[in-house]
Amino acid sequence: MRRVPGVTTRDDALALDAADPLASFRDRFHIPDASVIYLDGNSLGMPPKRTLERLTELYQHEWATGLIRSWEHWIDMPQRVGDVLAPLIGARPGEVVLHDNTTLNIYQLVHAALALRPERRVIAIGQHDFPTDRYVVDGIAASTGHTVRHGLERLDDVAVMVRSVIDYRTAERADVAAETARAHAAGAMVLWDLSHAAGAIEIDLHACGAQLAVGCTYKFLNGGPGAPAWSYVATELQPLISQPVWGWFAQVDQFAMGPRFEPRPDIARLLLGTPSILALAAAEVGISLSAEAGMTEIAAKGRALTTLALALCAQHGLSSPTPADPARRGNHVAVSHPAARSMVAELAMRDIVTDFREPDIVRIGCSPLTTRFVDVFDGMRAIGELAAG
Amino acid sequence: MRRVPGVTTRDDALALDAADPLASFRDRFHIPDASVIYLDGNSLGMPPKRTLERLTELYQHEWATGLIRSWEHWIDMPQRVGDVLAPLIGARPGEVVLHDNTTLNIYQLVHAALALRPERRVIAIGQHDFPTDRYVVDGIAASTGHTVRHGLERLDDVAVMVRSVIDYRTAERADVAAETARAHAAGAMVLWDLSHAAGAIEIDLHACGAQLAVGCTYKFLNGGPGAPAWSYVATELQPLISQPVWGWFAQVDQFAMGPRFEPRPDIARLLLGTPSILALAAAEVGISLSAEAGMTEIAAKGRALTTLALALCAQHGLSSPTPADPARRGNHVAVSHPAARSMVAELAMRDIVTDFREPDIVRIGCSPLTTRFVDVFDGMRAIGELAAG
Repeated sequence: MRRVPGVTTRDDALALDAADPLASFRDRFHIPDASVIYLDGNSLGMPPKRTLERLTELYQHEWATGLIRSWEHWIDMPQRVGDVLAPLIGARPGEVVLHDNTTLNIYQLVHAALALRPERRVIAIGQHDFPTDRYVVDGIAASTGHTVRHGLERLDDVAVMVRSVIDYRTAERADVAAETARAHAAGAMVLWDLSHAAGAIEIDLHACGAQLAVGCTYKFLNGGPGAPAWSYVATELQPLISQPVWGWFAQVDQFAMGPRFEPRPDIARLLLGTPSILALAAAEVGISLSAEAGMTEIAAKGRALTTLALALCAQHGLSSPTPADPARRGNHVAVSHPAARSMVAELAMRDIVTDFREPDIVRIGCSPLTTRFVDVFDGMRAIGELAAG
Repeated sequence: MRRVPGVTTRDDALALDAADPLASFRDRFHIPDASVIYLDGNSLGMPPKRTLERLTELYQHEWATGLIRSWEHWIDMPQRVGDVLAPLIGARPGEVVLHDNTTLNIYQLVHAALALRPERRVIAIGQHDFPTDRYVVDGIAASTGHTVRHGLERLDDVAVMVRSVIDYRTAERADVAAETARAHAAGAMVLWDLSHAAGAIEIDLHACGAQLAVGCTYKFLNGGPGAPAWSYVATELQPLISQPVWGWFAQVDQFAMGPRFEPRPDIARLLLGTPSILALAAAEVGISLSAEAGMTEIAAKGRALTTLALALCAQHGLSSPTPADPARRGNHVAVSHPAARSMVAELAMRDIVTDFREPDIVRIGCSPLTTRFVDVFDGMRAIGELAAG
């Protein structure tokens, strides 16, 4: 086939797959139907093969055989799995704990930040940030009397700024180091939401000066539907963190069951009640796969996949709000189209799985361990056909 | 063997097992090692065989095959599984939702109760109630300025009384109907904790006039380690319930992702973030087994098992704070002994699994779907031997 300069062909995509150092990782996942083109790993990652093995082992050798006695090694799983996740986000051992869900974790850490800035009465969040982040902040303000400011420009009276590293619609990436420095210089605390960043891009929370962060594990980390979220608190801040949900899993000597709540000095002070061990075990498998592949390789492939998607966007005459600079975006590409909602439905009829976000966005998720370049090519071609009518 | 009047023998226990209408349910559980005598189903229930099948199906046919599309039927799992649980506690369809953990659920419902009694400033809880219940209440009081009263006698200035149906140490059962009526007559709300009651005893929350309750599913309901907890809110109260953790799973039109939090009118307004589907699926299996067996049969066997345990207590000269009246206790028996802690350790060496609770209690859990009368006999005999030195 003659190559047309500036035109990307399916063979180009296949060549990229052939040269992909992470290509073999796709075999580590259960992919039951080759006809499905899955471009929604940014919403729900695919299942690692090891996950079912691990759940079976857990069921047989820990729950069934060990019964209650298995709590001896389950009890610190939230921190242990946190330590597996830590290097993927530039955190140190003991700085990450898996627990509950992002909503609850934001709730706790916003409260913790407010307690550290008692003289300030404003919580700042972008007006287009992810809904649960906004709702949590509004709920806190409703009960504490703080004011929510939907805008991040002015921070000199802000107690805490809440911000997603990757915009869930456009994939625009915040400058975490610069924004953290700007907020800290203004005396504000910052809580970063890495839900679309962890397992997707290279990020070094310590180098960025970040002190507080949360994220989920069911997207790029392939932890399973509704897998536990995580909280990150920089070591030096941990003894200072207080939050309003006092549960027995945060208690210094949990089984003494003493009269007064005395939170542990470490990251486990964020725990509440009994964590789901099944969910933690599945999350650990997914996170471990990303750790094995390495964030440098994963991020590089993410950039390459989204670069291809954006090139095809242009080739098909589609517009995208996703930044052209790979350093300024995450691992999905947004296609803006007035018929986005029906497009996503029509793509689904063809077994091409994307998702729709208000008001006019088709999201093309590029999950480096499972998405092939040819998936992006075929998906974008289908979108191009639908857009062309 | 000649029978000694008033003395219970191992053959008596075996005869009770032979006549047990629930005996066949034990085969529905994975019991890998016949040498283990498990008397801790009140802490962690045994694994139903179906659970591993269900997890495997979920992994293969829902997560792997359906991928993100499976959320179409996952999205209402918290309520759907709640409806499976509802009849076991005398709740109606739509009154129970599975989510998060007991700690968080208590936090939400105490806040909800306080919001309904804005003129009252006292939270009442027994000083020996379960630690997490006490800690949660203390945490709320610390942030709202309410006072915690460790005593339930006087309720005329109480906004909400928090109380366990079954005492986690002694197994003493509260008179839920009488206590609810007394609190309501005094103008107080009541939050019942059914962690040791659900799946253990017959309880009719509606007949008792109960409006708010929580509980776990990893004990008598065999939902797995750290299985999701549940909340119950009587239908008439649901539209009035507000709580401070505002998450997107409680939002009326979740995927519109609108600017303002607008909680759903139903029980799902208690949801926070994305729930663990693996954990919910496992919980559903356990709960369904209890539903299949029927609470009348389960409770009857619970009474018979604990009656046997108490008779053997007396026979071995052991003392117990557990009420002699079966209508006044739950499904475990507490043995008080100064050497309780070391006894539990020594029993464990013999593969007899019980647990220790401060200050001097060995708990003998009687889980009707899995505990045999002969297990109780053998366990109590071993305790008697250890006590006799």
